[in-house]
Amino acid sequence: MTKKILITGGAGFIGSHLARRLLADGLEVTVMDNLFTGTKANIYDMLENPRFTFMLHDVTQPFWGQFDEIYNLACPASPIHYQRNPVETTKTSFLGMMNVLELALKTKARVFHTSTSEIYGDPVVHPQPESYWGNVNTIGTRSCYDEGKRAAETLCADYMREYNVDVRMIRIFNTYGPNMHPKDGRVISNFVMQALKNQDITLYGDGSQTRSFQFVDDLIAAMCTFMNMELQTVNTFFESKGMEIPVLNVGNPDEYTIKELATETLRQIPSCSGNLVYMPLPKDDPKRRKPDITLARELLGWEPKVPLQEGLAKTIKYFSGIALKST
Amino acid sequence: MTKKILITGGAGFIGSHLARRLLADGLEVTVMDNLFTGTKANIYDMLENPRFTFMLHDVTQPFWGQFDEIYNLACPASPIHYQRNPVETTKTSFLGMMNVLELALKTKARVFHTSTSEIYGDPVVHPQPESYWGNVNTIGTRSCYDEGKRAAETLCADYMREYNVDVRMIRIFNTYGPNMHPKDGRVISNFVMQALKNQDITLYGDGSQTRSFQFVDDLIAAMCTFMNMELQTVNTFFESKGMEIPVLNVGNPDEYTIKELATETLRQIPSCSGNLVYMPLPKDDPKRRKPDITLARELLGWEPKVPLQEGLAKTIKYFSGIALKST
Repeated sequence: MTKKILITGGAGFIGSHLARRLLADGLEVTVMDNLFTGTKANIYDMLENPRFTFMLHDVTQPFWGQFDEIYNLACPASPIHYQRNPVETTKTSFLGMMNVLELALKTKARVFHTSTSEIYGDPVVHPQPESYWGNVNTIGTRSCYDEGKRAAETLCADYMREYNVDVRMIRIFNTYGPNMHPKDGRVISNFVMQALKNQDITLYGDGSQTRSFQFVDDLIAAMCTFMNMELQTVNTFFESKGMEIPVLNVGNPDEYTIKELATETLRQIPSCSGNLVYMPLPKDDPKRRKPDITLARELLGWEPKVPLQEGLAKTIKYFSGIALKST
Repeated sequence: MTKKILITGGAGFIGSHLARRLLADGLEVTVMDNLFTGTKANIYDMLENPRFTFMLHDVTQPFWGQFDEIYNLACPASPIHYQRNPVETTKTSFLGMMNVLELALKTKARVFHTSTSEIYGDPVVHPQPESYWGNVNTIGTRSCYDEGKRAAETLCADYMREYNVDVRMIRIFNTYGPNMHPKDGRVISNFVMQALKNQDITLYGDGSQTRSFQFVDDLIAAMCTFMNMELQTVNTFFESKGMEIPVLNVGNPDEYTIKELATETLRQIPSCSGNLVYMPLPKDDPKRRKPDITLARELLGWEPKVPLQEGLAKTIKYFSGIALKST
């Protein structure tokens, strides 16, 4: 029988890529989304596929369905979105996880949970290995996301220990590519949209701060490889590392300065006659984070493959269509 | 009209003391408890008071009631209890907080949330001020409690910012006294029960590790003072400290070695002919934590008053009754 897959948040940036990949693999895919930050446009090309189903539902409300595998991706992920309604953000993360794990427990589904590098907060260790506990404020304006995602990890760990639910977790670092929300307020979408609209490129600070960027195809490859592994293989690997809970960092450790990114963006969009404009660094500027991906390399035989130049070109192509529509 | 108070977890150690104090203040008190770690015995003396109501209910399930003030104390707090069903522990902390805050929002009740020094985890800063972000593992065996309580703080902060709910939070450090659970596995109950049963006193490690102990009466005094303050006074104070969210450490910063505690216990229970016995330190030994109570001192004009010798005597008196029944 064809495997049945549920993707919560499947109409979002990463979820829609995952859905496309799983359909290409021949599976039956149900995408659940409340369409808060996800959009119908992201999944439009799949709607007529007989193995694809869209389910308009909010993950914080209980749901039922018989699936072999559940990928839990539902949660607004950019500050501009998750701070719009902080209480709902924390609930989405926590209640969504709880509903997924309860369903998995009752139906014996395997769970893939996408956690985030945000659980490391403002790290004092560089790069961050999975064993790093993080440095997070419980009561700040970013806490709704960070603490919600931390508590979701805790739920995963305890459903595994207490009820033997098969859960695999990854912590996703900064990822970009087609289907990103054009107004998510993050640096790649900002730069590309500004350049496409022939505006100046706004840099905060002196542009020397570094970021690492993972192209979405690399992320999806890691996710599917991890999810398809035998439980025994996963357990043996993490036991050998002295880890009780299977969690992997997935990101691209190559670092670029913000200025390099701006320059490359302008190089790829020669129609833009704007300049680099420097603004003061905002108080809540996202902190530098760089993944230690030793474990993912070893377990998955995986490596980020898409260089920034190539990934950026694909992203610009996608945003060109959006910019055209919005002008 | 007499003020109506709800105490979630009101049949527990701290909740029952609080209930007694609020009744003495002339208020109407409803105690909600699922009696998992709380007991009817703790509130037995209040049951016939016409201003007292007991409500058998689990805080994770929504509830309704018109109260002026809600004290949120529901959550198993000792490792031996909260690790029995970790998933339920996290749910109690998160869903309980959510239900309390939703009710408060709809009924305009003032909320008092009891957080914990556990949100500091294994601190790298001593003593811990409220501004310290903590050092907590998201996926360990203590995480169900630590991360559940951290996420509860986040909910409080966001209900305040987003919906203007009036919430006051404290982080309670190690507290002891009558009505403690005799089998909570913590050091004071262990030592006293062993001495009362004329057994050897078991110390883990060499006994030189220090702990700070707050007598429950000191805690209750701080809680009531904080809760009764005008909102404006509270806000002005925290603004002057550059803090957006009103949270106070409440504990006793005096430190004693475990050996000093054992010796004092034996001095107060001369009938015990047992010896001090040293055992290897367990892996998950609770870490040293010491509160910085500068803010509580300043805002509440409060100071822990009960010395260990005196508090221990009252605790021993309470446990004597228990030990008698259990033999």
